[in-house]
Parts: sequence; C-alpha cells; structure tokens
Amino acid sequence: AAAMAAERGLAMATCTAPVNIAVIKYWGKRDTDLILPINSSLSVTLHQDQLKTTTTAAASRDFTEDRLWLNGKEVDVGHPRVQACLREGERPCPRCPCCPLSLLLSYKIHVASENNFPTAAGLASSAAGYACLVSALARLYGLEEELSEVARRGSGSACRSMFGGFVQWQRGERPDGSDSLALQVAPETHWPELRVLVLVVSGEKKPVGSTAGMQTSVETSPLLKHRAEVVVPERLAQMMQHIQNRDFEGFGQLAMRDSNQFHATCLDTFPPIFYLTDVSRHIIALAHRYNAHHGHTKVAYTFDAGPNAVVFALADAVAEFVEVVRRSFPPATNGDQFVRGLPVGSAALSPELVAAVVTEPVPGAVQYILHTKPGPGPQLVDDPSQHLLGADGLPRSHA
Amino acid sequence: AAAMAAERGLAMATCTAPVNIAVIKYWGKRDTDLILPINSSLSVTLHQDQLKTTTTAAASRDFTEDRLWLNGKEVDVGHPRVQACLREGERPCPRCPCCPLSLLLSYKIHVASENNFPTAAGLASSAAGYACLVSALARLYGLEEELSEVARRGSGSACRSMFGGFVQWQRGERPDGSDSLALQVAPETHWPELRVLVLVVSGEKKPVGSTAGMQTSVETSPLLKHRAEVVVPERLAQMMQHIQNRDFEGFGQLAMRDSNQFHATCLDTFPPIFYLTDVSRHIIALAHRYNAHHGHTKVAYTFDAGPNAVVFALADAVAEFVEVVRRSFPPATNGDQFVRGLPVGSAALSPELVAAVVTEPVPGAVQYILHTKPGPGPQLVDDPSQHLLGADGLPRSHA
Repeated sequence: AAAMAAERGLAMATCTAPVNIAVIKYWGKRDTDLILPINSSLSVTLHQDQLKTTTTAAASRDFTEDRLWLNGKEVDVGHPRVQACLREGERPCPRCPCCPLSLLLSYKIHVASENNFPTAAGLASSAAGYACLVSALARLYGLEEELSEVARRGSGSACRSMFGGFVQWQRGERPDGSDSLALQVAPETHWPELRVLVLVVSGEKKPVGSTAGMQTSVETSPLLKHRAEVVVPERLAQMMQHIQNRDFEGFGQLAMRDSNQFHATCLDTFPPIFYLTDVSRHIIALAHRYNAHHGHTKVAYTFDAGPNAVVFALADAVAEFVEVVRRSFPPATNGDQFVRGLPVGSAALSPELVAAVVTEPVPGAVQYILHTKPGPGPQLVDDPSQHLLGADGLPRSHA
Repeated sequence: AAAMAAERGLAMATCTAPVNIAVIKYWGKRDTDLILPINSSLSVTLHQDQLKTTTTAAASRDFTEDRLWLNGKEVDVGHPRVQACLREGERPCPRCPCCPLSLLLSYKIHVASENNFPTAAGLASSAAGYACLVSALARLYGLEEELSEVARRGSGSACRSMFGGFVQWQRGERPDGSDSLALQVAPETHWPELRVLVLVVSGEKKPVGSTAGMQTSVETSPLLKHRAEVVVPERLAQMMQHIQNRDFEGFGQLAMRDSNQFHATCLDTFPPIFYLTDVSRHIIALAHRYNAHHGHTKVAYTFDAGPNAVVFALADAVAEFVEVVRRSFPPATNGDQFVRGLPVGSAALSPELVAAVVTEPVPGAVQYILHTKPGPGPQLVDDPSQHLLGADGLPRSHA
C-alpha cells in the first residue's frame, strides 16, 4: 500500500489508539532523553468506543514542510518529542535503498489528530496521542516492527497504549532503552466482567505537568527512590498474579494502594506536588465507606496526575455504585448526561447503604461519569472517508 | 511543701505547660503500651503567653474518688493514659515508706485543666495537656525525677512539652522505654529572632485521630517504615546542626520537607489519611511563591495532624508575610482580630510582590493568625488565687 501510494505521490493512513490507566504507576525517569523509567508499570487499556484518539498521517511529494493539527488547530511541529516520532521512519531501512519506501520517507508529513475527550484533563491524552501518531506513521510507511519503543520516545506511558487489555511497561536494564518495552500481560477478553468508571471532576488543566513534576520527584523525594527500588518490583509481581487470577479483591486493593503511594511521592517532592483535591478525597473516602459497608472490595479507585478518579468495578456492582455517586455528588445541571458511555442499569439503594455510605453530599463536585471497560490496542481505520486530512493534505472541515 | 500539705489533709499544685510543634515529625509507635516511637523527633516549644494549658492537681484525705475536669467539664477519669499519669506517683518511693509522701499518695486526686486555645484543632493540645498534668502531679508529690518519660506515657509528643526551646525526643533502644526521653537541644533564648505564626484554618475536630491513624500507618505504609529507618536519622542530625547554627534556610527547608513527608506517609497509609485540605495546599503554594519571589527561604510551613499551618519566620519577615496572608485570605468578618498574639507591625507590599505571590485570593479560608515565638517549658504557678480548684477541691466558678 505504501509503495503504491508513493508512486501516486500521496500516501495516507488513519489509526485510532486508546487511553490507558496505570494500576502500578509510572513516575520518574532514569533517562530523560530516551524516556526510560525508574520502575516498571502496569496498566489497563480502556475501550476506544468511549475514549480514543484518531490520527491521520499523510506524506506527499507536494508537501513543503511538516505540519501538525491537534483537535483542528495547527500547532508547532518542532517539539522534540513529536520529532522523535516523525523521524522514526528515517532509521536505516531494512530493505534495499532504491525501494519505494525510501522515496516516501523523503516526503514531508502532515498529521491531524483528534481526541473524543477533553485534552490535558488527567485522562492520559498524551499517551493515546503518541500511540496513535506512531501507529499511523507505521501504517503510512508499512513498518511492522516493535513500535512500543518508538511510542515511548513520544510519551513514556504511550508505549502501554500500543496494546489492548492489561499491559506491562518493563523498566528494562540497557542504557540504550532497547529493552524498555511494553508487553501485553493479558488481552482485553481475559476479564470480561471488569468495568471502568471515569469520574470527571474537572476539565481544568493540571497545575504541574507530569514531565516536569516527575523529574522534580526523582531529584527530591527520598520516598520515590525507595518506592521504585523496593516497593514496585514486589507489587508488579503481585498485580500480575491478581490479573491472572481475575482476583478483584487483590487487584482493587493493590490498585488503590499504589495510586495512594504515587500521590504520596508527589507530596514528598519538594516543592510538593498536589494532584488530588478535596473532591478527590471525598471520592476516596466514599469508595472506602462503600467497600466497608459490603465487607469487601467492590470498587477500587486510581488517580493519575489530575483530580479525576478512575474506578474499577465488576459489572454487577456498577449500577449500585453509580447511584451512590449520583446521590453523593448530586448533578448540578446536566442531570440527563450525568452517566455517559456504556449503559448503566438502575439500582435502588437500601436505607442502610445510604445511611452508611452517602454522608455529606457535595452537589456538582462530579461533572459526569463515563462508563467503559478494557479494550483493544490501536486500530487501523480502513474507510478512507474517515481520514482527518483531505486529498489536499489539509484538515477536512467538520460538518 | 507536699509534706506540710499532707499534714493539713489537702495538697494542691498548679502548673502551666506549652504546646510544641515538631519540625522532624513523630508518627508511629513501635510499642503502643509504653508509647515508644519508631523514630526520634524534634520540636520547637511555643511560648505560653499565646498557647498554654493550665492544670491544678489536688490530693485530699476527704476525696472519695479521682475526678477530672477539662475546660470546666467533668470527664471520665478512667482513660488508661490518664491513669498512667495519675498512678505514676505510686512507683516505689525513693524515700522511707513512712514519710508524709506515702500518706499523700494514698489520697484520691482531683484535677482541673484548661487550655487558652481550642482543643483538638490540630494544635497538639494533648501534648500540652499531659505535660501539664505530669508537671502538676510532680509538684503535688514533690517529685524531682526525670518526668518526660512519664509525660510520654500520656501522649507521646507530650514528653517534648516538658522542655522549652528546641527539644529532641530520642527514640531510645531499650524495650522498657527507659531511654525514650526528651532532651533539650537548645533553650528558647538560643534563637531570639525566630517567630512562629499559627494560621488557624478550621476549628473542626480532625477526621482521624492521631493515635489510631499512626498505628494504621505503621501497619500498612511501606514508605513510613523506610522514613523511620533511613530518612529520619539523617534528617535529625541535619536539623540539630541547622538549629545550632541558627541557619534559617536549612532549618526552614528541612522543616517543610519533613512536614510534607509525614503527610505523604499518611497518604501511603491504607485506607489513606488526609490531614491537609485544599486550604492547606493554598498556604503551601503561597509559601513557596513567597520564598521564590525573595530568592531564599523567608517562611517555612509545617502541618501536624490537622489543616492548620504553623509557619516559621525570622522577626524581620513577619509583618510582610502577615500582610501577604491577609491579602491572600481576606478575613470574612472579624477583620480586627485577624492577627492575635505578639504585635505585628504594618508592611506595604510592592506591586511586584503582590503580582508574583498574591494569586487567586480565597476569602475567609484562614480564620486568624496567632503570632508567637519559642518559649520555656512547664511553669509552676505560685499564686494560690490562680488554682483552678477551690479549697473544696471543686472547679472554681469562672467570672
């Protein structure tokens, strides 16, 4: 396909890629250029029906410069991390130097990328974004090699969005980063009952970006060092076991503990970094009261570098917990859109449950709940009408 | 005095004792009965002109039971920790068994205690309370031995309130706790320029009591274990040096880092414990902006098990920082009582300072500021008219 397109003078490929949410957190690099982490991490890839990035990459002999549009707006293409991905195709070609691919590689590139969710809201949009860019470029060039290493160069956690289901990003040992790769631990079909609720607290941009934040943590937090060296290796092995066994009790407990420990190392950073707000704390307390009422772990929260909560639950617990959230954070206005994504059944709460769990409601604190589940890795979009760029290489106008 | 009083059938003693604020934090016991800590800690004793507990202890052959009044209200005297202090006098008397002290020790005891500040607001009222109880009982019985070990049995941090100035509570090694004592590092006169501002955020009772909280931390936080074993021993030595050198930069930086690390271990506890609120975080961010504007550490915050901030500063920085706090948290109503305690001069803020530091004011978030400084240890109140109990052994009515 790439060869044929190159002969026509224009090649184009469109992919989608998922968001992932870490249950053993990544925070801190041992090499900031190569983006090599201080510890391995493990994530769940979320389904693209609810959260995805779509990216079209085009190469043409008529393009005069590399150009990039994010969510319809042209942005500077000179960012070193974007360049690291764009230029990835320029590695020595395994085929002969006179093949059509070499011609294609000499062309300038246009890229358009869109999220179906708010960017920079702590929903790991950069992970989906870079995974999608790398997937689209690989399709454009017809490359079929290990791509998670390339995605990692864009944004560390992006390498985990190169696979569906349950994904480990192994720390690796080599200084060149060639063994710091993502590996699928189990596919999305492994645990069909697992559900994910994203409690969107705020669309605000986070106060300290994760790139700057984690580097300050590496430099100043004695607790982060101990976490990376001693705590995470044990936890990673435990978490793999819990996933293998589909043990929600073990999975949920460890996910909550690891989220809390990540935020603890942010607080141990100097100056301290806070991603959790009073609303996040309300959600955490609510989850613990809910589990305590049931006598076991029915829901498990995890928070990335932002105040939004991601809550894991098994399918049969979703309706009740969603109702508990609705009662605890009564929607301000858009009550009909409070629950989005996968359908949620209705649930009646017992008076005992309400009395024990729904204490001190905070109206409007949760904007909406997105109901989703584990999903597959990046997908090729075959239908040419779905390309984000037109035949002229410019973004299509949106209807 | 005790002997003479015992012959009259009524003995009474009144003492005052100070609050202390740790700059290397105590969190976690290795022995919950003896109250032996997992790490040494270091505190500054605050001046009793602003914050103190007053306690009167009386023993009489006419009393039929032990009784206790806190802030004018009678409370149960059966609490094991109170009993540990009350019964401390029953240790084998170093003098002969027929001395008047033995007679006095057989009497029942009445105790009345009052704070000149709100209890349970995260202002270490239990430390001052137990230090004061032990001091008053020791005076009553005429004991002159090592008392910090006794105070420790009431409330761990109370042992540090048995001395003025800068006080170390050494962890100790012996299983019986006999070497887990408070020691004065430097008297309150050592650093005359040092000032303390208590930013009272809320009079609410804290959500998780420190006794229960720290034990959960010991049981569940891997980071606390590392802190106690590895981080604190280094920090304690550094902090002693900073105090010795009156090095505010070093003292302040380390105090802030250690406060943050203590709260990080609370967050690493499972279920997590939160003492810092959004308002606490605002104060932390404000302090860092203020120091960044000046290019060095002019103020240093520390937070105990509650949202109130304790801010250290040198005397020449107080007026400006207080004005910054007033502008950042404009007082809601009692504007005239916003600053209490030691006098604070007026300060004009430069437009550059305001622009760089006073961002996003939060009206009413700080109730008031208490201005104080390091002070002496427990004091005997000689004036009999100051006793909180009358000649009948009952609390005096307040005018």
